[in-house]
Amino acid sequence: MSQDILTKVSEHLVFGGKQIRYEHSSNTLNCKMQFSVFLPAEAETAKVPAVYWLSGLTCNDENFSSKAGAQRIAAELGIALIIPDTSPRGEGVADDENAAYDFGLGAGFYVNATQAPFAKNYQMYDYILNELPQLVEAQLPLSDKRAISGHSMGGHGALVIGLRNTERYSSISAFSPICNPINAAWGIKALTGFLGEDKQQWQQYDASLLLTEAKTLLPILVDQGTADNFFPDQLRTETLITAAKQHEQADIEIRYQEGYDHSYYFISSFIESHLRFHAKHLKT
Amino acid sequence: MSQDILTKVSEHLVFGGKQIRYEHSSNTLNCKMQFSVFLPAEAETAKVPAVYWLSGLTCNDENFSSKAGAQRIAAELGIALIIPDTSPRGEGVADDENAAYDFGLGAGFYVNATQAPFAKNYQMYDYILNELPQLVEAQLPLSDKRAISGHSMGGHGALVIGLRNTERYSSISAFSPICNPINAAWGIKALTGFLGEDKQQWQQYDASLLLTEAKTLLPILVDQGTADNFFPDQLRTETLITAAKQHEQADIEIRYQEGYDHSYYFISSFIESHLRFHAKHLKT
Repeated sequence: MSQDILTKVSEHLVFGGKQIRYEHSSNTLNCKMQFSVFLPAEAETAKVPAVYWLSGLTCNDENFSSKAGAQRIAAELGIALIIPDTSPRGEGVADDENAAYDFGLGAGFYVNATQAPFAKNYQMYDYILNELPQLVEAQLPLSDKRAISGHSMGGHGALVIGLRNTERYSSISAFSPICNPINAAWGIKALTGFLGEDKQQWQQYDASLLLTEAKTLLPILVDQGTADNFFPDQLRTETLITAAKQHEQADIEIRYQEGYDHSYYFISSFIESHLRFHAKHLKT
Repeated sequence: MSQDILTKVSEHLVFGGKQIRYEHSSNTLNCKMQFSVFLPAEAETAKVPAVYWLSGLTCNDENFSSKAGAQRIAAELGIALIIPDTSPRGEGVADDENAAYDFGLGAGFYVNATQAPFAKNYQMYDYILNELPQLVEAQLPLSDKRAISGHSMGGHGALVIGLRNTERYSSISAFSPICNPINAAWGIKALTGFLGEDKQQWQQYDASLLLTEAKTLLPILVDQGTADNFFPDQLRTETLITAAKQHEQADIEIRYQEGYDHSYYFISSFIESHLRFHAKHLKT
């Protein structure tokens, strides 16, 4: 299978648009990948902007597709959703030696791995930033307007990729993001495994450090539930808030949502405000 | 565990209301059962009406809870959702000898079984009609106003239970219901297994026959996708339409939705109009 061929795995009509799952051979990740797309009805006659959604630990493209209720709003706003998997997949892809949920398959952490045996496949940063947009923008009715969002590990990915590539996106949002992985257990495990012991290398994947040092910025919206099991230790939202204070003039909003947890019930409750936030910036 | 005790398995805040999963010991089904409930914020200060949702083959209470996007609308309308499992469960409960998806566990068909070894547990008709409402109305902030809805096998259940008990519900709706099970493969298999060969016994569970013969009626709304894999052979929507023509003055609407399939993507696209339909009747 050539890397340029998109094979349709499934298609469903939803809210007048199309929810499609594709398979392709990824040159960046050296394996077959699946991802999902929602195309609103407008995409039948015009190129539409896209929100990229990066999912969290243990997820693939189906969690957000089936649980977030995002298609209703994307259909109304005329926005596509591009929903990649969270790691390379397949028999040839190295996994954590104990098949842990927080490292390896389902847990690519949106970095470019440098360490064996992971470097061959775990190049999720490049896949999300370059290969996937090039592929879908060449073959689907998408404009080059992009926003990026995600949940937990995917919120980390959205913040990191967006903050490092402000020319590629118009806005960033995140639910329950891992804000400061260099100082939290999930992050330390992943960054050690993928990048090795040199902590200088880790810093390029730490949203709080990147935000502190950012010279150009995008509009940012973050929601964090106060009843989240992983708050505050794994997520370290306060470090992101501290970093945001370096940029008082910027359009950065970090909201605590009282009583909400880490689940898709939380995401479904607030995805509408995230998509309306992105639409405002994608369409200006 | 006494039959009157509700044990909370999980709770999530969603759209300002509570999504709760309970376990209890069912006297009707002779086993432990789990079901889910959505309680809108209004339920903290007043008794609210409820829509019962009956799920389809292979499902339990989690499919609708996580995929339909119903809580957003129920929260707005101040309506509870009561979401039972689709069959008795547990090691002691008889299953299909080949563990088929369309009979036995996950496929109770909302009948009262008369045949061994199923009669001991498979009393889903009585469970949905009597035990479950009595339990939740005694222990949760629910009024005695009820509507009933469901999908596929659960659409069949909603139509059958609603049509036979018009004094207990204010309205009925269904997505992709099995409309005439006595003449379709899924239905014939289930009715033979649960009720035996006497086809007279089957008729009490056939929505098209019940509608044809109905003397009192409730408002009914049905949606059927035209790209549904099980349409028309298993679902036999046309027989329900023919039966509805016996009642030209009644409030019965059966809609074909062009291009939609049998999935939760279809349900999520139209659940809002179903819940608004039920709210209109629950609140008058």
